[in-house]
Amino acid sequence: MLAAGDLILLWSPRKGDSFLIRLSPGSTQGSHLGQMKHGDMIGMDYGDVIRTNSGEPFFILRPSVAEYTRRIKRRTQVIFPKDSGFIIQSLNFGPGSTVLECGTGSGGMTAIFAHFVGDNGRVVSYDRREEFSKLAESNAERWGVRHRVEFKIRDLAEGFDERGADAVFLDVRNPWDYMDAAKDALAWGCRIGIIVPTFNQIEQTLDALISRGFADIQVAELMLRYLKTDPRRIRPDDTMVAHTGFLIFAAKARPIPDPESEQSEEAQEETTQARNDAPNE
Amino acid sequence: MLAAGDLILLWSPRKGDSFLIRLSPGSTQGSHLGQMKHGDMIGMDYGDVIRTNSGEPFFILRPSVAEYTRRIKRRTQVIFPKDSGFIIQSLNFGPGSTVLECGTGSGGMTAIFAHFVGDNGRVVSYDRREEFSKLAESNAERWGVRHRVEFKIRDLAEGFDERGADAVFLDVRNPWDYMDAAKDALAWGCRIGIIVPTFNQIEQTLDALISRGFADIQVAELMLRYLKTDPRRIRPDDTMVAHTGFLIFAAKARPIPDPESEQSEEAQEETTQARNDAPNE
Amino acid sequence: MLAAGDLILLWSPRKGDSFLIRLSPGSTQGSHLGQMKHGDMIGMDYGDVIRTNSGEPFFILRPSVAEYTRRIKRRTQVIFPKDSGFIIQSLNFGPGSTVLECGTGSGGMTAIFAHFVGDNGRVVSYDRREEFSKLAESNAERWGVRHRVEFKIRDLAEGFDERGADAVFLDVRNPWDYMDAAKDALAWGCRIGIIVPTFNQIEQTLDALISRGFADIQVAELMLRYLKTDPRRIRPDDTMVAHTGFLIFAAKARPIPDPESEQSEEAQEETTQARNDAPNE
Amino acid sequence: MLAAGDLILLWSPRKGDSFLIRLSPGSTQGSHLGQMKHGDMIGMDYGDVIRTNSGEPFFILRPSVAEYTRRIKRRTQVIFPKDSGFIIQSLNFGPGSTVLECGTGSGGMTAIFAHFVGDNGRVVSYDRREEFSKLAESNAERWGVRHRVEFKIRDLAEGFDERGADAVFLDVRNPWDYMDAAKDALAWGCRIGIIVPTFNQIEQTLDALISRGFADIQVAELMLRYLKTDPRRIRPDDTMVAHTGFLIFAAKARPIPDPESEQSEEAQEETTQARNDAPNE
Repeated sequence: MLAAGDLILLWSPRKGDSFLIRLSPGSTQGSHLGQMKHGDMIGMDYGDVIRTNSGEPFFILRPSVAEYTRRIKRRTQVIFPKDSGFIIQSLNFGPGSTVLECGTGSGGMTAIFAHFVGDNGRVVSYDRREEFSKLAESNAERWGVRHRVEFKIRDLAEGFDERGADAVFLDVRNPWDYMDAAKDALAWGCRIGIIVPTFNQIEQTLDALISRGFADIQVAELMLRYLKTDPRRIRPDDTMVAHTGFLIFAAKARPIPDPESEQSEEAQEETTQARNDAPNE
Repeated sequence: MLAAGDLILLWSPRKGDSFLIRLSPGSTQGSHLGQMKHGDMIGMDYGDVIRTNSGEPFFILRPSVAEYTRRIKRRTQVIFPKDSGFIIQSLNFGPGSTVLECGTGSGGMTAIFAHFVGDNGRVVSYDRREEFSKLAESNAERWGVRHRVEFKIRDLAEGFDERGADAVFLDVRNPWDYMDAAKDALAWGCRIGIIVPTFNQIEQTLDALISRGFADIQVAELMLRYLKTDPRRIRPDDTMVAHTGFLIFAAKARPIPDPESEQSEEAQEETTQARNDAPNE
Repeated sequence: MLAAGDLILLWSPRKGDSFLIRLSPGSTQGSHLGQMKHGDMIGMDYGDVIRTNSGEPFFILRPSVAEYTRRIKRRTQVIFPKDSGFIIQSLNFGPGSTVLECGTGSGGMTAIFAHFVGDNGRVVSYDRREEFSKLAESNAERWGVRHRVEFKIRDLAEGFDERGADAVFLDVRNPWDYMDAAKDALAWGCRIGIIVPTFNQIEQTLDALISRGFADIQVAELMLRYLKTDPRRIRPDDTMVAHTGFLIFAAKARPIPDPESEQSEEAQEETTQARNDAPNE
Repeated sequence: MLAAGDLILLWSPRKGDSFLIRLSPGSTQGSHLGQMKHGDMIGMDYGDVIRTNSGEPFFILRPSVAEYTRRIKRRTQVIFPKDSGFIIQSLNFGPGSTVLECGTGSGGMTAIFAHFVGDNGRVVSYDRREEFSKLAESNAERWGVRHRVEFKIRDLAEGFDERGADAVFLDVRNPWDYMDAAKDALAWGCRIGIIVPTFNQIEQTLDALISRGFADIQVAELMLRYLKTDPRRIRPDDTMVAHTGFLIFAAKARPIPDPESEQSEEAQEETTQARNDAPNE
C-alpha cells in the first residue's frame, strides 16, 4: 500500500505523458489533463488507476532506476540509461563494489552506481562545485540510496583519497588531467570508465591512457532508437537523440617487464603502439 | 594474490587477443602467440604481465561481467551487454530483487541478473530444455553466482510458480504465448522485459500486451559501434553488429475502471488504442 | 550575373539560417536578422554577400538539388536526399532514362528524377490527387525541369500507359496493389524501387514481389547523422532524424523455366523460397 | 537482344550470389553453382534465365551504376553508393556539369560522376599515380562513360588547370593541402565535397575551410543497414559496414565586406567563429 514518501510514476494512457513524483500529503500534481491530489493516492497500490479532476485516468507505476535518473533535477547533462547500463557492466562492478566517481554533476550516474552496489557497496563522488554535490545528494536521498554515497567537495588535483577501488569513473571536461589520480586509486587489473562528448577529447584521453600504460583500451558509442508501438504501423520514431557521449574503458596494468633487461627503447615504443592499434579486433 | 579457481582475462597488447579463463593448476592456455601455464599465474596478481613460451606478453586483467557473458560457453545466441545493461535498468530491478526469466538459454542473461541482484536477491530461470539449463548452471557457477539462481526445467505452459516478482524477462520465440503467465507472476505496477529479433514478433507481442492491458509499452533498439583507438587516426571500426534484438517493456496495470459504470465497449476500445498510440512521445 | 528568376540560397554565417528563393524584382525576403530586397541582389553574383537592413551579412549561394527538394512547398512528406541519392543509383537510371513514378506527392522525387535524366530523359508521374500534381508541377517549374516531366492525374488501377520503362518508383501507401501495373510497365531485367515507412508494409510488399517472381529483392535503410563543425569540439549533432522510410528494390525477371518440364510444384516453391532467403549475403 | 560487350549482372536465386560481367564470346563465368558460357547468353535478353552446366538457374539482370561501382576492379577503397548518392545531390551537379576530382583512385566516383553528367557534361580527374589513372580509365571504359572523362596524371601541387568548375571533389589523405587549388578552380557560390575516414582529418579540413572563408560548412555521416527479406522474419542483417567516411561540404564565398571599413580584427574573428558554430541547426 502506497505511503507518504513513496516514489511513483504517473503515466497517462492518452498521451503517454508521465510524471515521477514522491507522495507528499497535501501536494497536488498538475498535468494538462487535469490535477491529482497526492493524498488520494496514499493507500492505493502500484498498478492502480487514479483520475484527474477532469476525469482523465493515470496509471500509478513503479519507476525504474532508468526513469528516475532520466528525470532527476539537474543542472548538468545527465548520463543516459543506454550509456550507464553499458558502463556498469564494463567495469569490475556489482553489489558490494567500491566505486570512485568524478565529477558528481547532478548525480545521475551516482544514483545508478549507488543503486547497483547495494547496501554492502560504496560510492565516493568528487566534485569541486558545492551546488552540484548538494543537488546530487538530494537526488540520491530521493531514490533511497544516499547512505551508500560519500560526497567530497573538492578538486581532484590532489588525487583521490581512496586506494584499491574496484572501478573509477570520470565524467569531466579534461579526463587526461586526472589520469594519474585515477590510476593511483584503481586496483590492479581493474577498469577505468570515461565519458566525453567530442572526438578531440577522445584523442587527448587516448594519449593519456597510452602514456600511463593502460591496457585493453576500448572506445565505443551507443545509439538508442525507439519504435512506435501501433502494432499495425510498426516503425522507428521520427527523431532520436543522435549523440550523448563516447565511452572509453581501459585496464590498469603493470608495465611489460623487459625479459632480458636489454630491450631497446625503440622496441618498447613499438609494443606500446601495438597495444593501441588492435584492441577491438 | 591469484589462486586456483580465480577467473582472469588474458589480454595481448600485440593483437588485442584475449582469453577468459579459470585458473586450474596443470592446465595450459594456448594462443597463436604461444602457450601459458595456469600454474605460473597462481601467486601472481591482477595487472601483472605473463609471457608465453615464445616470449609474448599477456596482461592478467579482471574480467567484467560484460566480458564474462560475451564469452560463456553457449549453445544459443546470448544477449549482448549493450542490451542487457539497458534491460536491467528498465525493470524494477537491483540488489535484493526477485527476477523471473524464461527461457534460460545459455544463461548469459541469467548470469547478469544474478550478478546484480546480489546475495539478497533471487533469480528463477525456466527452460524446458535440460541441456540448456545444465549449461547455464555451469556458466553461473563459474561466475560465482550459482547460489542466487533456481533453475526450473519445464515449459511455461502451466505458468510461473512465483507471484509478486519485481521483474519478468522473456527471451523466447513466442512471447505472446506466455503473456498471461508473465502477468500472473509480476507485481502490480512492475515491468516485463521481452527481447525478439524480428518485426513480425514485435507485432504479435504488442497485440498480446495491449489485449492484456499492459501500460507504458515501449519498443527500443540499441546499436553499438566501436571506434579504433589510434589517437592519430580516430574513426569507427569498419564493421559492426547490425542487429541483435528489439527490446520491449511494459508495466502490469489494472484495467481503467469505468467512472460511471456506463462506458460503452466501443469507448473502452478507443482508450486501449490511445494507450498504444502515444507511449514514446 | 544574377537575373530575375534565378534560384539562390541565402545563408547566414551567424546562425546558419538559410532561405531558398527565386529572385523577383519588388519582392523582399524577411529573416529574424532583418530584410533583404530581391532587387538589390539582381546584378550581384553567386558567392557575393548581401546585408539585411539591420546590417547582417547573408551569402548568396547556388542551391544544390538536395537543398531544393528539401525546401519545396509541400503537402506531403518528401523523400530525403539520403534516400533519393541511393534510389537513383540503385535503379537503371541516368541521363536519357525514362522513369515512371507513382504517387507524385509534392514532387520532390519527381524533381530529383527530372534533374538527373537531363533533357534527353523523361519522367512520367502519376497521382490521382489533382492538387498534388499541380503543386509538383510548380515545384518542377521552379527548378527548371518541368519540360522533362509528364504529370498524369489518375489512379493506377488501370496500370501505367507506358511500357519498357528503365525504372519504376512507387511511393504509395499500398505498393502491393500496383505491383502488376509496375511489372507490366518495366523493362525486363530492370528494377523497381519502393519506399514505405512501416515494417508491416515491408511484409506485404515482399509477399507481392515474391509472388510476381521479382529477383534480387533488397530492403535497406539509411541513417544520416550530421556533425557539429567547431574544429575544437567535433561531435555529432544532439538530435537527428531517426527514420524516413525503408527502401525496397527488385528486378523484373522471367520465371525460371522448368528444364525437364517435370519439376514438381513443391520443388518450385522451394526455389522461390531460396530466392527470398539469401539476397543480401 | 544481348550482344558481345554488353554488361550484365548474373544473379542466383539460390544464394543471392551475383557476378557483373561484360559479355565476351568464348569466355566462361564460373561460380560455385557451376559454369556459364558467355556465348550462350548472346542473343538472350535482360530478365532471362540461364542455367549453369550443373543446372542451376541464374537471372540475367541490368546492373545499376551502384552495382557497377561496388564491383569495379580496385586497388583502393571505393566510395560506397550510400555516400556517392548523397555527394552528387549536395553539389551543384547534374547532366551537363563540369566536375573536378582528385584523387582518381580506382575510379569508382569518377564513373558515378561521368554517369550522371551525361554526354554534355565533363569530368576531369587528377591523380599522381599512373597505375590508378589507368585502372580508372578502364573502369570508365567498361561502363561506357570513358569519353566524358579527362584523366590527368599529376600532383595537385600546381593546382587544377580548370576554372569555374560546377563542383570539386577531394578524396585524398590530406585535403587541407589542396584547399587553395580547389578554391581557385571552383565557381563562386558552388560547393566542394570532401571525404575523409578519420576525425583527425575532419579537424584539419575544417580549419582549412574556415581559414579560406568557405561558407555553409557541413559534416555528415551515412549509415546503411540492409534487412533480411523473408516476409515472415523481417529483421536487419546481423552485421553491417560500420564506417566508410565522413562527408564534408562547403561553398566558395567572398569575404564578408567591412560595411564601415572600421571593423576591428577581433570582431572579424568572432564572425568567422559564428559561421562555424551554427551551420547545422
